[in-house]
Amino acid sequence: MEPWQLTATAARARLQEGTLTAEALVRSCLERIAARETVVKAWNFLDPALAIASAREVDKAYVRGVLHGLPIGVKDMIDTADMPTTHNSPIYQGLRQGRDAACVGIARGEGAVILGKTDTVEFAASGRRALTRNPHDPTRTPGGSSSGSAAAVADGMVPLAFGTQTGGSLIRPASFCGVYGMKPTHGVVNSEGAKRYSHTLDTIGWYGREPADLRLLAEAFRLFDLDRPLGKGLQQLRIGLCRGPNWHLAQPESQAALLIAGQRLEAAGVAVEELSLPQRFEGITEAQRIILLGEGRGAFLQEYVTAHARLHADFRDRVENVAEITGARMACAYDLAAECRKLFDALFPAFDAVLTPACTGEAPVGRQDTGNPVFNSMWTLLHVPCIGIPCTKGPNGLPVGVQIVGPRFGDAALLDVAALVAPVIDPGLALE
Amino acid sequence: MEPWQLTATAARARLQEGTLTAEALVRSCLERIAARETVVKAWNFLDPALAIASAREVDKAYVRGVLHGLPIGVKDMIDTADMPTTHNSPIYQGLRQGRDAACVGIARGEGAVILGKTDTVEFAASGRRALTRNPHDPTRTPGGSSSGSAAAVADGMVPLAFGTQTGGSLIRPASFCGVYGMKPTHGVVNSEGAKRYSHTLDTIGWYGREPADLRLLAEAFRLFDLDRPLGKGLQQLRIGLCRGPNWHLAQPESQAALLIAGQRLEAAGVAVEELSLPQRFEGITEAQRIILLGEGRGAFLQEYVTAHARLHADFRDRVENVAEITGARMACAYDLAAECRKLFDALFPAFDAVLTPACTGEAPVGRQDTGNPVFNSMWTLLHVPCIGIPCTKGPNGLPVGVQIVGPRFGDAALLDVAALVAPVIDPGLALE
Repeated sequence: MEPWQLTATAARARLQEGTLTAEALVRSCLERIAARETVVKAWNFLDPALAIASAREVDKAYVRGVLHGLPIGVKDMIDTADMPTTHNSPIYQGLRQGRDAACVGIARGEGAVILGKTDTVEFAASGRRALTRNPHDPTRTPGGSSSGSAAAVADGMVPLAFGTQTGGSLIRPASFCGVYGMKPTHGVVNSEGAKRYSHTLDTIGWYGREPADLRLLAEAFRLFDLDRPLGKGLQQLRIGLCRGPNWHLAQPESQAALLIAGQRLEAAGVAVEELSLPQRFEGITEAQRIILLGEGRGAFLQEYVTAHARLHADFRDRVENVAEITGARMACAYDLAAECRKLFDALFPAFDAVLTPACTGEAPVGRQDTGNPVFNSMWTLLHVPCIGIPCTKGPNGLPVGVQIVGPRFGDAALLDVAALVAPVIDPGLALE
Repeated sequence: MEPWQLTATAARARLQEGTLTAEALVRSCLERIAARETVVKAWNFLDPALAIASAREVDKAYVRGVLHGLPIGVKDMIDTADMPTTHNSPIYQGLRQGRDAACVGIARGEGAVILGKTDTVEFAASGRRALTRNPHDPTRTPGGSSSGSAAAVADGMVPLAFGTQTGGSLIRPASFCGVYGMKPTHGVVNSEGAKRYSHTLDTIGWYGREPADLRLLAEAFRLFDLDRPLGKGLQQLRIGLCRGPNWHLAQPESQAALLIAGQRLEAAGVAVEELSLPQRFEGITEAQRIILLGEGRGAFLQEYVTAHARLHADFRDRVENVAEITGARMACAYDLAAECRKLFDALFPAFDAVLTPACTGEAPVGRQDTGNPVFNSMWTLLHVPCIGIPCTKGPNGLPVGVQIVGPRFGDAALLDVAALVAPVIDPGLALE
């Protein structure tokens, strides 16, 4: 087995015991990238000499952090001190920010090696798409906007990568690419240094190839209650199977994935119960859209004022409020979200997690359509932690995942649930 | 009258008609600073040659923005492309960020001249205090954390300045220094590039010397509904006089200021009615504290991991969660805030604005105690727009202000109300 094939957790064990160095792991990842990048196109910036030098520094460190020696890809709308950040915008080509975003600085401080910058939808929002292809079928999208991060982790180019989710930009690509993804509770990971789109929605998250990988980053970010284990076995879990208000938009393969995941859990002895959300949740998808458009007015004003001609029309429309969002509609959307957050949290601890679709179906063909975020945007607005888990394959042989969701600040418990249910839901994981 | 004595609005009129240049205005401000800075100590960074060069560039511009030619001070935890940003932290001394924060870029794009960086409490939060003195009495604080910005505007060093409010960092210094201050609705001004403390609370705002000055920046930031005038005269206004749940913490001069402001308005024909907030508001001050402490955990983690020894113990305590904030307490605090936001908005349009204390009293003596934010933190958490208005003087001859507050997104109407009520509440304004 080549080092690039190791999950972050497996690589970490070898790094800790001294049978693998950060440099050897980075070199192996770079070889994988060299072999595959012309097809996958995951990277906006990659300087092999810089990555190797960073790894050698880590190998020399006195203190070993929780991410010691692990290479990580960074979505190219998150600042890095030693690499440009383009936001996939013509305005920011070649921009060197000179400072790490909070999440990058923390990862580096915990011993991670920043491998390079991964392609993204413009400003992780709209406009230009990433060049990245789905590693399972290069004629298809890896999803967006964390396109390069999801594809790179799926293809073995890097064991971990940062993404962000404002609508469905983390969990949808995880499903399309067949990897694990985590969107933590909103606000617990400082998003400073990642381009803002919507302060209510923007959430830093990450990809890995097994649930334990996701926990490594949760530890780096000191999420609440990581020292309090769930204390339950698989057969003591109670899972709410939630089709949600947009079930009719799920293609057959996504509907099948949810039902298969539920059946696999039941067969393993988990208590799975159908869960209907209260009627108020019907308006949540629209509330998310209003907040996205309304907050986008201010988010792109700087570029509108200072670089108008190079700002995609999608963003000029936000600033000019073409959608005619009013303050009153914004306030209503915020209030509905707050009400539903409270309602959703009240489902716990009767349930340990909610199981729900991660996407509408397989990854679409082409590069322009990065998929529909409708099965994600609701959870993003609810601020709850979500973990994407691979489950099955669609009619074209592409991965289709599901996600589990917990209450706000229930990240640690959700990671414990993921560790229990993933080997049941994801046959690929059990094979490894 | 020297140009530095002009309000932003008065200077703007002369700049527009061509009887004043940006360079002449900046040179006049620099002269005022040269005469007073050894006493006031408002500035962390000031390069006269750079400020003059920026002004000359503005004088040559083809397009005249809404802030054309106006000098503005920038709180030293907001990034500027051409000046260092220290956050008043030993960690960031001399840091040149290489890029403007969103608010700075927008102001520059609208023709403002960035004059320099104003001193602040460390990270606009805790730890080290600014060196700044109150221009009305150098033995006293100008308040914090926007210490230098409030003092510089009060002292005539610059007509406008950016500050931020997370607890009471904008409106309290406005009261202590006898200037006008605006904290807009949370989230409408992009805070990217200002150091994060609490994503739920951090709000960019600004200082000026008359209500019309505040509107100039509201226009630059395209706040909602600026094109919809209030359409009422002074005697058609209905103002709710709100002592609030912390009235017992107001010193006699602050209690007097509120009652005097109410009496002046009544005498001018305004309908002033006592307003009691619903009982749920009793918990809001504590909710703000929990959110501040809980969100502070993640906000300073990067510095904790990468520059531990140079991070003040106040911030290490946040990261280590010495206050033992739990996720459950955070969720409760968020939910209470959401409930009270809705309750507060429901008071409108029966009222045009709420009149309430801006501070506990006069500016304290010394540099360490920057004053109590208890009359501000509630409104910050409610996300509502606040405008600080000078009103009276305390027993030691120092300014004591009040504030008016509107519903979320009611910034434009609140500016209209301020323009009507300020000449009544603030005798100093009527004198000018």
